[in-house]
Amino acid sequence: MSGDSTYDYFGGIEGGATHSKMVLFRSDGKVMAWTEGPSTNQWLVGLEECLKRVCDMVQEAKKIAGLDQEKPIKALGLSMSGADQKEAQQQIIDGMKSKYGKVSENVAVSSDTSGAIATATATGGIVLIAGTGSNCQLNNPDGSSYRCGGWGHLLGDEGGAYWITQRAIKAYFDHVDNLHPLQCDVTYVGDTMLKYFKIEERNGILQYLYTNFDKSFIAGMCKELATGATEKKDKLCQQVFHDAGQILARHVLALEPKIDQKLLEQGLSVVCVGSVWKSWDLMKLGFMEEMEKSTSHRISHLSLCELKQSAAVGAASIGATSIGRTLPLDYASNASVFFTTQLGK
Amino acid sequence: MSGDSTYDYFGGIEGGATHSKMVLFRSDGKVMAWTEGPSTNQWLVGLEECLKRVCDMVQEAKKIAGLDQEKPIKALGLSMSGADQKEAQQQIIDGMKSKYGKVSENVAVSSDTSGAIATATATGGIVLIAGTGSNCQLNNPDGSSYRCGGWGHLLGDEGGAYWITQRAIKAYFDHVDNLHPLQCDVTYVGDTMLKYFKIEERNGILQYLYTNFDKSFIAGMCKELATGATEKKDKLCQQVFHDAGQILARHVLALEPKIDQKLLEQGLSVVCVGSVWKSWDLMKLGFMEEMEKSTSHRISHLSLCELKQSAAVGAASIGATSIGRTLPLDYASNASVFFTTQLGK
Repeated sequence: MSGDSTYDYFGGIEGGATHSKMVLFRSDGKVMAWTEGPSTNQWLVGLEECLKRVCDMVQEAKKIAGLDQEKPIKALGLSMSGADQKEAQQQIIDGMKSKYGKVSENVAVSSDTSGAIATATATGGIVLIAGTGSNCQLNNPDGSSYRCGGWGHLLGDEGGAYWITQRAIKAYFDHVDNLHPLQCDVTYVGDTMLKYFKIEERNGILQYLYTNFDKSFIAGMCKELATGATEKKDKLCQQVFHDAGQILARHVLALEPKIDQKLLEQGLSVVCVGSVWKSWDLMKLGFMEEMEKSTSHRISHLSLCELKQSAAVGAASIGATSIGRTLPLDYASNASVFFTTQLGK
Repeated sequence: MSGDSTYDYFGGIEGGATHSKMVLFRSDGKVMAWTEGPSTNQWLVGLEECLKRVCDMVQEAKKIAGLDQEKPIKALGLSMSGADQKEAQQQIIDGMKSKYGKVSENVAVSSDTSGAIATATATGGIVLIAGTGSNCQLNNPDGSSYRCGGWGHLLGDEGGAYWITQRAIKAYFDHVDNLHPLQCDVTYVGDTMLKYFKIEERNGILQYLYTNFDKSFIAGMCKELATGATEKKDKLCQQVFHDAGQILARHVLALEPKIDQKLLEQGLSVVCVGSVWKSWDLMKLGFMEEMEKSTSHRISHLSLCELKQSAAVGAASIGATSIGRTLPLDYASNASVFFTTQLGK
C-alpha cells in the first residue's frame, strides 16, 4: 500500500501541554486519519522526546491511511504550545530534518494560537485563549502577527481560569483581613475554597500555592465559581467573571490598532479557545462594557466563534501554506459563531 | 565556670530564612553573648535541622558567656520566620523539650513579627514588614494579636520588594502590549530589567519567573528601581513606590479597629522592618494619602520606627515574659523613630 500517487498528503498537529492531536489530509481536503499522543510541549517533555512523539503520531497516521511509512508526507504543520518564539520553532524544524527525515518533506512550526486561527479562517483573525492561562494573538492576511498577554500567571494570564480563581481567593483573603472589605458576602467563595482544596482553614491554601504549586489544579476551582455565579447568584463569583470579560476584551482592544483593514471590512472574527468561554454568559456584560470603551472605533462588527475542530486542522493548513499550497478546508464547519455584535457609533 | 548563680539567663533567637541571630541576657539585662547561625526556618531546613541549629547557637552562647553547657538557661524565646501558626510553634517547643532538654528550662516560640515588636516596646504595637515580602501584625497589651497580609507573592506581599519589582515589570509589559498603555516613559524600567536579569529581550524574563523562580533575586531589582526613582526621577519607578506606600498604609488601617485603646493613647508606634523602608521618602506621600482615608480616626498620633537591635532581643524578652519574668531592656536604644505625624480631622 502506498496511497494514491496523484495526491499529496499534509499533516497537522495540535501539540498541547497535556495531550496532542494529529490529522492527516489528502491534498483534495479528505481526512485520511486522526491520531493522538501525549504532551509535545518541548519545555515540559524536552526537545528529543517532543520530536519522537511527533514522529510516532505521524507514522501512525500514515499507517491508518495506508501510506508507505518510509515515504515522507508533503508537509507537516505543528501548532505547539510552548513554541511562541522563533528559536524554539527553529529547533523543532532542525530536529525533525536531521533525525526524522522520513516523516515529512517540509515542516512548519507555529504557536498554538496560530493553529486555532487557521482552523477557523483562511484569511487570519484574532484568537483569544482563556483556558488555564490566557493569551491573545492577531494574524493579519499579510502574514504579520501581533500578540498581547500570554506571559504566565506571574505577569499575565488575565481572564484565564487560574487568574479567576486567584482573584476570588485573594478577594476572600483581603475581606477577612479587612485589607479590602467587600460589600458582598464572601462565604460562598471561602467555603468553596475549603471544600475544593480539602482544607480546614484558609491557611491550608498556602501548601497548594507554594509547597505543591499546581496551576491546573488551582484553575480547576474556577468551575465551582461559575456554578456559584449561575446557580447561587453569588455576587463575588459573578464579579470575577465580569472582571474576566473586561480584561479579555482589553486584549482585543490592545491589538485593535494593528488589525489589517481587510479583516475589519469582513467583520472581525475572534476565535475563542479554552474552557473559560463556557461561562460567556457571565462575562458578556464586562466584555461589552470594555469593547465600548474603544476610542478608535475601528472594530464595527465583531463576532466570537468557537472551534468545532481540533487546531490540528489549522496546523495542517499552515504546513501546506508554508510551501505555497492550499488545503481546501470547510471553514463553515470548523468553527461556529456564538456571539455577534455591532460596535461604535 | 558556671556563671553567677544569683542570676538567671535568658536567650533569644531571631530565626530568619537566610540566617539567624542569638542573644544571651543575664536577668539584670546585661548582654552576655551574641552568636549567629544559618537559617532556622523549619519549612526551609526541616524541623530536625532547625532544632539542631537552635541548640548549637545556644550552646555556643553559653560557652562565650562562661556558663555550664550542661545546665539549661531559664528561658529561650524563639522568634522564627515560618512559625506563624500554633502547630508549627508547638512542634518546635515539643522538639526542644524531648531532644534538647539541656538547652533551656522553658521555650517560647513566636513569629518573627512578634520578636520585632517586643524589641521596640514592652507594651505591644504594630510591626509592618516590607522586605522581600510583606506582613503586618498587631500585638495588643492584653496579649491579643491580629494579622493582615503575609500570604506570600501569589496572594499578598503587597509593598514588599518582590511586589514592587513585579508591579514595575508588569506595567512595562502591559505598556508594550498596549494592554494598559501609560502616559509615562517605560524605558528606564525596561532597560533596567534587561540589565539586571542579563537578558537581551523581554521574553528572557520568563525563565527567571518560571523555569528558575528565585523570589529574592527578582526582589533584588527593587533597589535599581529605587535608584531610578531618586536619581533619574523616573515616573514609573516613583509610581510603584508611591503604590507601595499606599498599600502598606492600608495594612495598618486594616488593623485599626482591633488596636487596643492603650496603644492609641500613648501614640501608635509602628515598627518598620525590611529593606524597602530605606525608600521611605519615595513611599511617604502614598502612605500618608492612604492613612488620611481612615474613617474611624482612631489613630491620632502615629510614629514609624526602625529597629537598631536584632529582633533576638525581643525574642529573649518574650521568652522571659512567658514564665512571668521581665527583662529590663533599654527600649530607647533598641529602636529609633524616623517619622511622626498627627492624623485626623
